[in-house]
Amino acid sequence: MEFPGAYAETGVFVCFEGGEGAGKSTQSGLLSDWLRARGREVVLTREPGATAIGKELRRLVLSPETGVLDDKTEALLYAADRAEHVATVVRPALRRGAVVITDRYVDSSLAYQGAGRSLDVADVDRISRWATGDLRPHLTVVLDLAPSEGFGRFEERDRIEGESVEFHTRVREAFVRMARADPAHYLVLDARAPIDDIHAAIVARVQDLL
Amino acid sequence: MEFPGAYAETGVFVCFEGGEGAGKSTQSGLLSDWLRARGREVVLTREPGATAIGKELRRLVLSPETGVLDDKTEALLYAADRAEHVATVVRPALRRGAVVITDRYVDSSLAYQGAGRSLDVADVDRISRWATGDLRPHLTVVLDLAPSEGFGRFEERDRIEGESVEFHTRVREAFVRMARADPAHYLVLDARAPIDDIHAAIVARVQDLL
Repeated sequence: MEFPGAYAETGVFVCFEGGEGAGKSTQSGLLSDWLRARGREVVLTREPGATAIGKELRRLVLSPETGVLDDKTEALLYAADRAEHVATVVRPALRRGAVVITDRYVDSSLAYQGAGRSLDVADVDRISRWATGDLRPHLTVVLDLAPSEGFGRFEERDRIEGESVEFHTRVREAFVRMARADPAHYLVLDARAPIDDIHAAIVARVQDLL
Repeated sequence: MEFPGAYAETGVFVCFEGGEGAGKSTQSGLLSDWLRARGREVVLTREPGATAIGKELRRLVLSPETGVLDDKTEALLYAADRAEHVATVVRPALRRGAVVITDRYVDSSLAYQGAGRSLDVADVDRISRWATGDLRPHLTVVLDLAPSEGFGRFEERDRIEGESVEFHTRVREAFVRMARADPAHYLVLDARAPIDDIHAAIVARVQDLL
């Protein structure tokens, strides 16, 4: 097992989580700009789809054409994407001292495939920890938003977005529950707040990690 | 956990394992013909690639164009294929009383991703057991052949076939080791024997399961 502390003196690993339309891309972009302006190397990345195989897997898990998948199949596809992402993108960047900002990580699987689907969260967690060698973010920013508000921003929905409001409500609650259980590694922000206010709150926490 | 016994009065689950070129397709076809001639429904299937998503995953894991994958990524892709295969093909067929004959199953992951690659076999086993709900074959037939002999039958090699002789030797040894540890559920046959002799030996064991 490798703990965040193992990278504390070199890279910094920040993760954005939350439902669709909560502003993860906007805020990770702003954080990236802020860090680069201060001379830090930033690797802005995401799950699924950051690697060559991940792009294929992203297409498979998100395309409505894929149709129904067994819950375990879906969870294992996300885990495969994650294993490749950590091995070939995240770890090498952390080792050379970069700040890695990922749009989604392990918590998304715990929330979507665990709480959202019918899978045992402990099983999904164990597989994700194996896939990543238990690499954990120094900070996970949860942009919290009611599912109905996030969906307003999308016209066409992918396989996951197309799930029921109940599904997305379980997902939202799972993110907040994980954050409350480990406040030292999480920051929960109301995604309806002004963009600049959210950015300022994130910077205040990230500054302590640099 | 569900054990084979749960299906003993309905379906029968037979698995063929072994290296490339050992005759798995030939022998599963002959067994299938023999069973059908006796009025049994037979589902002849394989891993990876028996489902729609599995066909995509088969292409990804076997195509030389995919290049190097992290060992865990590869193991998780096989597990995803297996989860979908068991949920949508194997279990439904067993429930209606069919004989399911699969070309490769869990043992292939234990041999190729565990013994062949650098992964801990216990980890690969745990993930495969989760993916399948611990569904185990009533009988696994290992067609044993030295790697160098199997390769003679292929002109173009896929990602796995293209591995070293040492890799394929570890794989072969793993199959035989698993079989020796559980003789009640395995049959190891010399793949160089005449096709009809191998078929007769398989039928002798399968007859006891019907």
